[in-house]
Amino acid sequence: MAFFPASEYQERLKKVRHRMAERGIDVLLVTDPANMNYLTGYDAWSFYVHQLLVVFIEEDQPYWIGRKMDASAALHTSWLDQNHIIPYGDDYVQSDLKHPMEFVSEFIVLKNHGNKKIAADGTNLVNWVRIIKSENELKCIKKAAKISEIAMQAAFDSIEIGGKQSDAVAAISHAQISGTDEFGGDYPAIIPLLPTGDKTSACHLTWTDEPFKQGDPVIIELSGCYQRYHSPLARTIILGIPDDRSKHIAEVVVEGINTTLDCIRPGMTCGEVELVWRKVIEKHGIIKDSRLGYSMGLNYPPDWGEHTASLREGDRTILQPNMTFHMIPGIWLDDFGIEISESFRVTEKGCEVLADFPRELLVKPNIRLA
Amino acid sequence: MAFFPASEYQERLKKVRHRMAERGIDVLLVTDPANMNYLTGYDAWSFYVHQLLVVFIEEDQPYWIGRKMDASAALHTSWLDQNHIIPYGDDYVQSDLKHPMEFVSEFIVLKNHGNKKIAADGTNLVNWVRIIKSENELKCIKKAAKISEIAMQAAFDSIEIGGKQSDAVAAISHAQISGTDEFGGDYPAIIPLLPTGDKTSACHLTWTDEPFKQGDPVIIELSGCYQRYHSPLARTIILGIPDDRSKHIAEVVVEGINTTLDCIRPGMTCGEVELVWRKVIEKHGIIKDSRLGYSMGLNYPPDWGEHTASLREGDRTILQPNMTFHMIPGIWLDDFGIEISESFRVTEKGCEVLADFPRELLVKPNIRLA
Repeated sequence: MAFFPASEYQERLKKVRHRMAERGIDVLLVTDPANMNYLTGYDAWSFYVHQLLVVFIEEDQPYWIGRKMDASAALHTSWLDQNHIIPYGDDYVQSDLKHPMEFVSEFIVLKNHGNKKIAADGTNLVNWVRIIKSENELKCIKKAAKISEIAMQAAFDSIEIGGKQSDAVAAISHAQISGTDEFGGDYPAIIPLLPTGDKTSACHLTWTDEPFKQGDPVIIELSGCYQRYHSPLARTIILGIPDDRSKHIAEVVVEGINTTLDCIRPGMTCGEVELVWRKVIEKHGIIKDSRLGYSMGLNYPPDWGEHTASLREGDRTILQPNMTFHMIPGIWLDDFGIEISESFRVTEKGCEVLADFPRELLVKPNIRLA
Repeated sequence: MAFFPASEYQERLKKVRHRMAERGIDVLLVTDPANMNYLTGYDAWSFYVHQLLVVFIEEDQPYWIGRKMDASAALHTSWLDQNHIIPYGDDYVQSDLKHPMEFVSEFIVLKNHGNKKIAADGTNLVNWVRIIKSENELKCIKKAAKISEIAMQAAFDSIEIGGKQSDAVAAISHAQISGTDEFGGDYPAIIPLLPTGDKTSACHLTWTDEPFKQGDPVIIELSGCYQRYHSPLARTIILGIPDDRSKHIAEVVVEGINTTLDCIRPGMTCGEVELVWRKVIEKHGIIKDSRLGYSMGLNYPPDWGEHTASLREGDRTILQPNMTFHMIPGIWLDDFGIEISESFRVTEKGCEVLADFPRELLVKPNIRLA
């Protein structure tokens, strides 16, 4: 049984079929695991083998095609009936002799659609439908935000001079998955990122088993996850007394975030949002040549971003209520970096920040006594 | 600085260039993050954007091409010098206007290789080099096996009637990442799988926040990970008194594993290994129509398998010393499943099982008092 009522998925599918019609597409192949979940609820760690949905524009249900041993997971987690779950044999898996897409082709021909207009989901058709969240989805994202707060607190509590980086991430991961008393957490689409010391110049590094050292800056980027929905959050901790450079950059970043959040309104473009930010930091002599943020929500590893709208120069996506973004103004210098981020929802009149965690450079001047 | 000495990577690259020469390939594009790590040490959670190595057959170092914000991670984690780290601008990321592969094409043309024989790594050239592990790699895999033992013990200790599935996985994940007193753990390429109750028929399901119930079977498939190397392990726990069907299947599976491990010798084919297994279970009236196992080692999400050799009918890969496999004879019926697995290394004369954990159906008849 799918997590949401079948009507939720049917509404999504209606939007997808509408867009297919606009583009003259008769058959859509949906391979992104987030898109498969979005349209059916299907949720299993099976996306290392070929699997997809086949959406025929004239049919009410899509077909799930996947490995035979995963058909039971499709029955357990999707709203599809058994006739729409089409398994292929294990001899198609990672073989030099047979390819699962041959099976898919034969299926489409068998369904008399071999001569129709068939599209692979390369132009992100379903991703663009995902960009506006339903009430059901927003409930999940808010639960994810709550878990993000708890996990960030676990990070702050467990990162300490002399402690192992791996032990801190163990505590963060524990918090992400155990969640709250009311609801447990899911695995996030990105594991906790934890660049430390001069490695804070490299935003996507993970942890080591080295100890934290006096004076280390530590970047934590993480997200709670609930039913595959995310609400990412980044903070930077200084294990000691921050120097003037750190304090200055952090202050400018926070001013930039505050000013930008205050300006956000439905009807603005993503490019206009980024311009607000850029003007603030340029005033202080800081330049950021990477995007300010991106649309996020439902996803699987390796990314919680939706690969549609970005908060950056030239992005003409118009903000609409119930879009959700991760605004992550990371500043990375040659030997040092700072990240302080917020996830937000566009509302009818402005925006709502999702997690509640102090928006500042965190400082932890404790020294562990040996 | 890369984790292994530069000579380790140079040796691997030599083998790759040798295979390129055999196939008449001048330029190899290596996009799989495991292959990028294998040849350079590069290790960052950046594989949700385009990134790759370009291996020119006549040059000693490959080129890393990736997003500008990840160039610092390449300097920090690979043995490449700065001249071999080629960043592209953020305007290439998830854009409708520019594609990172245009940047890659221009780079190859600029290097005067535009008219050479260029191959994308579609035929798993590097994966097949990875199949035989070096001594350095085996040390990592053995550390991963140690973490697998600890994590499976954490699973056994935390899975109990009335406890939340999510809390048990939080404990497992904590154990995977904190590792041992001597070394910490890395994130595994597959998160803990935990099909429970009648969902044990669906091997790739993850957890929920529901409580475990009296009588539930619980499958745990997990792996410790050290420096991206794995040693997977699966067990099944019955929360109560196992019925005759469970006991029978588990006994046959264990007999099958024992007999097969005893027979393994270098020089056998993977297909011959599977035949030994199949004869044992057929004798007891059990049929398994999916592969028995696969080559594993270094990897990133979503899979710790190497996508080369499989233990299955018709696979003609010849076993050689220091190949490593996950033998996972899962039996999945309509409403129930059992998994008991072992990872092993092929030795000069037979094979060595990597983790040390009771090879049996685990039973936990405790009842938690409210």
